[in-house]
Order: sequence, then structure tokens, then C-alpha cells
Amino acid sequence: MKKRVFVTLKPGVLDPQGRAVHHALDGLGFEGVEDVRIGRLVELDLAGDVSDETIGKMCEQLLANTVIENYRIEDTPGTGE
Amino acid sequence: MKKRVFVTLKPGVLDPQGRAVHHALDGLGFEGVEDVRIGRLVELDLAGDVSDETIGKMCEQLLANTVIENYRIEDTPGTGE
Repeated sequence: MKKRVFVTLKPGVLDPQGRAVHHALDGLGFEGVEDVRIGRLVELDLAGDVSDETIGKMCEQLLANTVIENYRIEDTPGTGE
Repeated sequence: MKKRVFVTLKPGVLDPQGRAVHHALDGLGFEGVEDVRIGRLVELDLAGDVSDETIGKMCEQLLANTVIENYRIEDTPGTGE
């Protein structure tokens, strides 16, 4: 069973990496980019009996800094189920 | 218009960050984790007229190292369309 965890900065938290990418895209001549935010994607390959609740605990304890970051757990679409 | 770009290491490319997370999850007592891979998530807030082809060019030129990384462009589900 594959699960994806998205870890993103909470709204309002400054994202210097996203700002740098935004600036670089402008510099390369790409137009129409209004905002860029960078997050992490954690792809977990799990034995079948791991619940979303357990994955939530992994996020709270290790994968995300819940002071400044949100996390979201999703099934991997298409493959791997 | 919001788009998400996932940048992941190609299969077979060593992922030390994922291995470290896997090891740490084991150390915290989580069972059933078979593999962990870490990638980047780039959330782009775009003017309406930016095509997926243009986003592909952004990936090729800046967002992904296509020697060792794959990228995938997705619409943001639910919100922001």
C-alpha cells in the first residue's frame, strides 16, 4: 500500500525557498506566476495494516513540524494500491 | 489557477533522506514501513493562461534535475480552480 504525505508551510509562514524559485522563474522569462510555495512529499510504502491514524502520528512525531507546517495524507492514485 | 508539481527521484536513484526517515520511523517504533522516498512539492499559483507545456518547461529548466528526477504536474484538487 502506498501513501503520500504532503508537508506544506502554513499560510502566512514565510517561504524563502518559494520566493527564490518565484524570482528565478521571473528571471528565466516565465510570465503569469503569481506565487510559489515549496513543500515536501513523503512517499510511504506500507504494509497493508497501517492506518491513516498511525501515519498521522508519524507526521506529528517526525515528518512535519506542526508549529509551522500542515500535513495531508493521500492515497497514491492509480498505481500501487 | 493552482497547479502542483511533484518532483521525485527516479527509481534506482539512492535517496539518503528517505533512508534516514525510514530509519527514524523504525527507531520510533512504527512498524509496517517498507520504504520511504522523499520528494519536493511545488505549488504554483498561476494566471489562467499558463499551459501545462509551459509548466513542463519550468520543470526542465529550474524545478527538477531531469538527470535524476522525474516531475509530474497535477491540478490542485478541490480548491483553487
